[in-house]
Amino acid sequence: MKEYKHQMLPEHGGNRYRAGVRYDFSANINPLGMPEPAKKAFAGMADMLEYYPDPDCTLLREAIGEWEKVPAEWILTGNGAVELIYGLVYAVKPKKALLVEPSFSEYEKALRNVDCEICYYKLDKSDGFQVNEEILNSVTTDLDLVFLCNPNNPTGQTIARECMYDILKRCEQNQTLLVVDECFLPFLSTEEERTLKPYLLTHSCLAVLRAYTKLFAMPGVRLGYLLSGNPVLLKKIRNVLPEWSTSQVAQIVGREAAKDTGYLFRTRNLIDKERLFLREELKDNPLIDCLYGSEANFLFFRGDTMLYEKLLQQGILIRDCSNFLSLKKGYYRIAVRTHEENIKLVNGMKRLAEKARDQEETWQK
Amino acid sequence: MKEYKHQMLPEHGGNRYRAGVRYDFSANINPLGMPEPAKKAFAGMADMLEYYPDPDCTLLREAIGEWEKVPAEWILTGNGAVELIYGLVYAVKPKKALLVEPSFSEYEKALRNVDCEICYYKLDKSDGFQVNEEILNSVTTDLDLVFLCNPNNPTGQTIARECMYDILKRCEQNQTLLVVDECFLPFLSTEEERTLKPYLLTHSCLAVLRAYTKLFAMPGVRLGYLLSGNPVLLKKIRNVLPEWSTSQVAQIVGREAAKDTGYLFRTRNLIDKERLFLREELKDNPLIDCLYGSEANFLFFRGDTMLYEKLLQQGILIRDCSNFLSLKKGYYRIAVRTHEENIKLVNGMKRLAEKARDQEETWQK
Repeated sequence: MKEYKHQMLPEHGGNRYRAGVRYDFSANINPLGMPEPAKKAFAGMADMLEYYPDPDCTLLREAIGEWEKVPAEWILTGNGAVELIYGLVYAVKPKKALLVEPSFSEYEKALRNVDCEICYYKLDKSDGFQVNEEILNSVTTDLDLVFLCNPNNPTGQTIARECMYDILKRCEQNQTLLVVDECFLPFLSTEEERTLKPYLLTHSCLAVLRAYTKLFAMPGVRLGYLLSGNPVLLKKIRNVLPEWSTSQVAQIVGREAAKDTGYLFRTRNLIDKERLFLREELKDNPLIDCLYGSEANFLFFRGDTMLYEKLLQQGILIRDCSNFLSLKKGYYRIAVRTHEENIKLVNGMKRLAEKARDQEETWQK
Repeated sequence: MKEYKHQMLPEHGGNRYRAGVRYDFSANINPLGMPEPAKKAFAGMADMLEYYPDPDCTLLREAIGEWEKVPAEWILTGNGAVELIYGLVYAVKPKKALLVEPSFSEYEKALRNVDCEICYYKLDKSDGFQVNEEILNSVTTDLDLVFLCNPNNPTGQTIARECMYDILKRCEQNQTLLVVDECFLPFLSTEEERTLKPYLLTHSCLAVLRAYTKLFAMPGVRLGYLLSGNPVLLKKIRNVLPEWSTSQVAQIVGREAAKDTGYLFRTRNLIDKERLFLREELKDNPLIDCLYGSEANFLFFRGDTMLYEKLLQQGILIRDCSNFLSLKKGYYRIAVRTHEENIKLVNGMKRLAEKARDQEETWQK
């Protein structure tokens, strides 16, 4: 019994989530409390900032578990999904990994930190940047890790269900860890049929990444999570992450966010409508050469090579994708925003197109 | 010129800190904004959570620079000092490191993640757990890294200035990285003469760790920083840290906190008075065998082996230090809190001492 008690000791002081604590002398925190100017920046939860966050994120994981319909034990939270990408890579220390290119660049950055050999499955522009069954030729037995982003960032396209399942099966056979980043998937009405969550129970090679950042519009909070039915993997990653990496703010705000049950429905309604609006309004704009088939909450296109700079002059910031390995200047990603904001973009693009036409006419004269 | 522009592109979308941005289409964030229940948890800064934090933490580093009287370029912020400890270890990948034992356990946890060989300089209880010149025998030429905590956690004692300087000199000669964790140093009135900050300019082997957690009473925010005059080291660490690891909340609250100029003075006044009060009230308590000479905002002592459990029954949580490598059951750390709270602890200890005396008398009858 004494042994057991000893084991239950918190690693550090300040774990006030143990039953019956009324005065905490275990954490060496300034008894004056937070400085007044800092407190003023907050209202509802300022007092909670004076305590360490729960290192086990118990209540937050329960809330996410209800939201995601998975057991809380399968959830590992972090300081944004990016921290979990880095943590996973440090924990697994892969020797060889497969990436889709172009895709979210943090996978590669994390892998470079552990000197991992990286293979690329390059998306083909003549194929509309679609992942297809050919990727299976790249899922070789010597891979330790595969990162997929579904829908892919920045191209916005999903991976066909059959193809995804074939990749998963191959990875399970090869004992390759498959990490599917589903950060954008909840924006899609087809989420339920596309998510790999149902395979978590049966496939220990699988981890699914998700984040509050995008879906709940809180990049300033830093909150992401990894789902896995493999307790050994979760523990390994947890061990390489710093204590308290999920902040108090993330834990409290995160719990509240997941309680807004109508939010997802309103989100998809808006995104579906506005993605269509943007597509219709932009498809004939002469500054755009090719508008690819994104299903996500952003559009991907190739167009005028100075579009980024030109729109910025109007105060409109879009994502210039030329720093992706396989993309040149002229590829762009734009987020689907509110109708009011989308109109600003559409009008900005129209103005630029008119200006270009006027210039051309002047030259022709 | 075009080359230069290309280089200036942000690594990801959402960097709205660039001049002239009014509409951000570069980050794929839900245009609905944060869910209402989550927003309610905040007041002043809720809107700012809908944006990515500045990945360069420009304004925050300027505020810290003013507070610490060091150039902003010497500062690297992170999601708590712990993230910087992990980041530094991942970046440097030391083969052999020296730790003081007992000390803050995260140094060791981080080193274990990179399979580093660890040497210990063991503090001696017969010497009152003081670091002395003997440590120089352990600062050997084959070390890649030395972690020191000044004042040390959990023992609370500082390292003599001459000794510290000898260690620094030795590390510079040996090209060993010396990381001095000064998280508790600002609580001491002797901070100015004890900090290694003045050596940052001349010693590229030196890094100083500090945190808001303790001093500004905001462990829930997660904000720490590393000071170094070595730009190569700073860049190396920055490269292994996830983007946006310092949250929006940390950046905004952090800037405000550093503006409260009277805070440090009030803190030291309170701590000096209350440390003395606790020491006076506890020194003759029969449940304490030895009260060590802490100069920090916490006390360290050896006493009754069941004290942790007994105080917890009164709702008082202290730090049981038995999970430090070299400490057994019976070593404790208590924070110096407000006078009101300190009285609760003192009275709780008195009650326990009386109870023990009564029991002894009963047995003697």
